[in-house]
Amino acid sequence: MKRRAFIQRLGLGSVATGTALSSSVAIAKEKFRWKMVTAWPKNFPGLGTNANLLAKMIAEMSGGRITVKVYGDKELVPAFEVFDAVSRGTAEMGHAGAYYWKGKNEALQFFSAVPFGLTGQEMNAWLYYGGGMELWREIYNDFGLIPAATGNTGVQMAGWFNKEIKTMDDLKGLKMRVPGLGGEVLSKVGGIPVTIPGGEIFTSLQSGALDATEWVGPYNDLAFGLYKVAKYYYYPGWHEPGTTLECLINKKAFFELPNDLQNIVMTACKAANLDMLSEFTARNNQALETLVVKHKVQLKQLPDEVLKSLSIISEEIVSHLASKDPMSKKVYQNFSKFRKQILNWEKVSEQAFMRARTL
Amino acid sequence: MKRRAFIQRLGLGSVATGTALSSSVAIAKEKFRWKMVTAWPKNFPGLGTNANLLAKMIAEMSGGRITVKVYGDKELVPAFEVFDAVSRGTAEMGHAGAYYWKGKNEALQFFSAVPFGLTGQEMNAWLYYGGGMELWREIYNDFGLIPAATGNTGVQMAGWFNKEIKTMDDLKGLKMRVPGLGGEVLSKVGGIPVTIPGGEIFTSLQSGALDATEWVGPYNDLAFGLYKVAKYYYYPGWHEPGTTLECLINKKAFFELPNDLQNIVMTACKAANLDMLSEFTARNNQALETLVVKHKVQLKQLPDEVLKSLSIISEEIVSHLASKDPMSKKVYQNFSKFRKQILNWEKVSEQAFMRARTL
Repeated sequence: MKRRAFIQRLGLGSVATGTALSSSVAIAKEKFRWKMVTAWPKNFPGLGTNANLLAKMIAEMSGGRITVKVYGDKELVPAFEVFDAVSRGTAEMGHAGAYYWKGKNEALQFFSAVPFGLTGQEMNAWLYYGGGMELWREIYNDFGLIPAATGNTGVQMAGWFNKEIKTMDDLKGLKMRVPGLGGEVLSKVGGIPVTIPGGEIFTSLQSGALDATEWVGPYNDLAFGLYKVAKYYYYPGWHEPGTTLECLINKKAFFELPNDLQNIVMTACKAANLDMLSEFTARNNQALETLVVKHKVQLKQLPDEVLKSLSIISEEIVSHLASKDPMSKKVYQNFSKFRKQILNWEKVSEQAFMRARTL
Repeated sequence: MKRRAFIQRLGLGSVATGTALSSSVAIAKEKFRWKMVTAWPKNFPGLGTNANLLAKMIAEMSGGRITVKVYGDKELVPAFEVFDAVSRGTAEMGHAGAYYWKGKNEALQFFSAVPFGLTGQEMNAWLYYGGGMELWREIYNDFGLIPAATGNTGVQMAGWFNKEIKTMDDLKGLKMRVPGLGGEVLSKVGGIPVTIPGGEIFTSLQSGALDATEWVGPYNDLAFGLYKVAKYYYYPGWHEPGTTLECLINKKAFFELPNDLQNIVMTACKAANLDMLSEFTARNNQALETLVVKHKVQLKQLPDEVLKSLSIISEEIVSHLASKDPMSKKVYQNFSKFRKQILNWEKVSEQAFMRARTL
């Protein structure tokens, strides 16, 4: 190869011949073109946009050495095939929620949302400093995957209903979209949990295929227009008190990256994780005002009796997971110990302060 | 320059002549050796270690193209000279808390902690999605600085005391280490606020130069051994409900970086921000148990009457800031509007869930 052609191909331009070289390094690397399949409609507020942000941060930090093309639900694979698609390498990355994959391993539900479990901030504490991330990695490793937490919705809403929930009897026979462990709780009390992707909720509620649904919180629920097909909007989201969203990474593809790009990918996930929780926290209230004031949605708190019953049943369901397989037992024990500790700390910190602020 | 010498200097090695070049890019850049001065003792748990983490992430993501050497309090400059040192370019980065610089602009206190203000999660929501960051950048720009949020302690403790706080009278004449707006509140109720760096707290309390002190939370306070020189440990930390730690960046140095490194620096700050809040959340409770069980610290909640009085005075102090200068007014108005909105949202989310979880 001729020197001039070589320099042109590298695009080094004037820098290569200038004095700056005396204190410079050069990194010549392959360019990586990755695909990210997601469980959300393309550009969906908060979730789809977080996938976009993640891709953008990776491209910008790497100076374009790695670019990630984001695909919405069904553009490359449907929402619920994201796990398999990344596992087999159809895409190098995925963006979803770990509870969607409970068919692979029941324990995976702990890494998204546990009824009456942890808030967003507590989930991050558990994942990064409580041993959660190590357990998650252990499970995904068997599927040729590496997980990363890449977002959190904060405390969700309990959901949209067309009848009031006054007693536990009102949940009997209720066909409600609610995935993961929350769905199992509903099943235990006589309801009929349904798991469908977000994009299908509106029409299912409209057609009567569903009686009720949860989705995320005001910001997302407003975007889906759920107020048009349901009357009551209940809180708090006992079933998803701080749902972690995940980035799935194909392990083989990840280890083909040089170290600096590996670090860029993982750090981008962490920054995106904080970004989503910040966005939802900031935007939910504004959306809630719009729902209540403009769209006349009736905002209601679940009765204490209902919450207490759901809490007891949730603990039964969650602890039952421990009996399913050794890994589920291991995750349950780690999670439960952390949850017990954190409840003590919150009593003198977040909970005590929030109370003091409204005295 | 001879082609061989050129390639050797770039360190391209075999890649440069291999087939991989057909899909490769090369980045030839200066190496940047930065210094970071901090307001904390070197390697201090949570705070000093966050500065180390930030430096590590930047080095790893850049493949060593930018390295940051971290200096503890007094190693290069004392804690309270961090702002000036970075502003004049003695160091390219600093790691501190914005309320230390209220002498530069009173409004800066909003970007660390406001009494009865926002929790850590809410601070991040305000900074990233509520307009807070833009205002902060506007102020620092006049000093040749760029700010970034790089950590949050979560809700702090109210502090260490050698006498019980039963009424507001117990705060009169109290010499207490408490910086920023919390200090002004203490002054208003007849106490004597003192601002000294963390590293000087223990000896000041031991010598009797201080009657009381706040510092951070159990994890940090245990590390400083404050239980050895004070008897009562009060909660909640009304004066610092979610303190943001900052990275100060010299603007000129920042814009000398190529785009990819600029993005690496800013994204590392965001990831470090989440990391610190996660670490404090996870580790505070364990430390609290050690303090109470092992060191027999008496844990006490501030009486509601005291909290109510402090809340009223805090609002007076904080709103008074708005009259000081146009920028303080602008920040106060933005912050207050956001705080009012977020309180509505928390009532149906975090606060409602935490209550439901302990029914």
